[in-house]
Amino acid sequence: MNQIIRFCMSCGQPTQDRTPEGDNRSRAVCGQCGEIHYVNPKIVAGAVAVYEDRVLLCRRAIEPRKNYWTLPAGFMENNETVAEAAQRETREEAEGEVTLHGLLSIGDVPHIGQVHMYYLGDLIEGKHSVGVESLETRLFSEADIPWDDLAFKTVTETLRYYFSLRARPGFVASAPGEPYQFTAQWKPDR
Amino acid sequence: MNQIIRFCMSCGQPTQDRTPEGDNRSRAVCGQCGEIHYVNPKIVAGAVAVYEDRVLLCRRAIEPRKNYWTLPAGFMENNETVAEAAQRETREEAEGEVTLHGLLSIGDVPHIGQVHMYYLGDLIEGKHSVGVESLETRLFSEADIPWDDLAFKTVTETLRYYFSLRARPGFVASAPGEPYQFTAQWKPDR
Repeated sequence: MNQIIRFCMSCGQPTQDRTPEGDNRSRAVCGQCGEIHYVNPKIVAGAVAVYEDRVLLCRRAIEPRKNYWTLPAGFMENNETVAEAAQRETREEAEGEVTLHGLLSIGDVPHIGQVHMYYLGDLIEGKHSVGVESLETRLFSEADIPWDDLAFKTVTETLRYYFSLRARPGFVASAPGEPYQFTAQWKPDR
Repeated sequence: MNQIIRFCMSCGQPTQDRTPEGDNRSRAVCGQCGEIHYVNPKIVAGAVAVYEDRVLLCRRAIEPRKNYWTLPAGFMENNETVAEAAQRETREEAEGEVTLHGLLSIGDVPHIGQVHMYYLGDLIEGKHSVGVESLETRLFSEADIPWDDLAFKTVTETLRYYFSLRARPGFVASAPGEPYQFTAQWKPDR
């Protein structure tokens, strides 16, 4: 996970690992201009995109976990919200458009410096097709989810949580913009 | 917000702004070794730390918004969870220890590439004192919150939301590890 910053991104001179004054962690500090380079966790945003009673999964065309099934998700970019990132990733990986409800899950993945956040959404008209980072996209009913071939633990947990929620009597997805009623979070593996 | 990456952090040679193959955004790409430098949003994690009916605020010793009041919060680091970051920031900014309940709010701040996440917590024994980035720390009752002197919009929104929740009949903070019952999210200013 730790990006290795050997050279200063401002002046191109070598960095040194040291703890800046007033800080308590080692950072890559430029030996020439003094710039401090911070490396922080990244957000992976995605969607549980539902059509009728089925959920959209994508078979990954790229590493890590090539060939395994995942929810559409990817790195959030600057200048967008978490929700917009989830919609964009669904578009890029599965050529689907989603109307979002509330945030369904937040999963810390500290050993690789990531936080995964999944929204619940409706896949418009059930339309999807294979995006650039996918080998295949498909709508799965709960009985058909390929549990042993899911790509990431946060995908498995999010799907399990979604199906457990849906099974509750009277379950209604929260409206966009409302306080989220059911965001789950789990203890990470360490 | 956009960190300017003029030089490659791997080899120190100048970068060029261009859209890598298979991507759809301009990135700083090394002209020498081809490394692509991604810049993604950062998570700011913090706590609404409550003792009896009062909330802990810190008056900022540093820019931006020096002298204004804030909830203890700061950039999440690698190798920690969002919850651990909220606890660490409360320790660093206010020398307080918090037992956390659920996640209270998520605030997108896309124009500066940040996502702010606040937990609800109990400030142990009500103890706090001035941390390195604070000029003053104090427990405020709802009636005394310095609304006009709060540092950030996400702080104002999170406090308003907390007080509105607390006013509901039968309000009980969700237990740690339980699905979060009341996480709020707002449309960002654009």
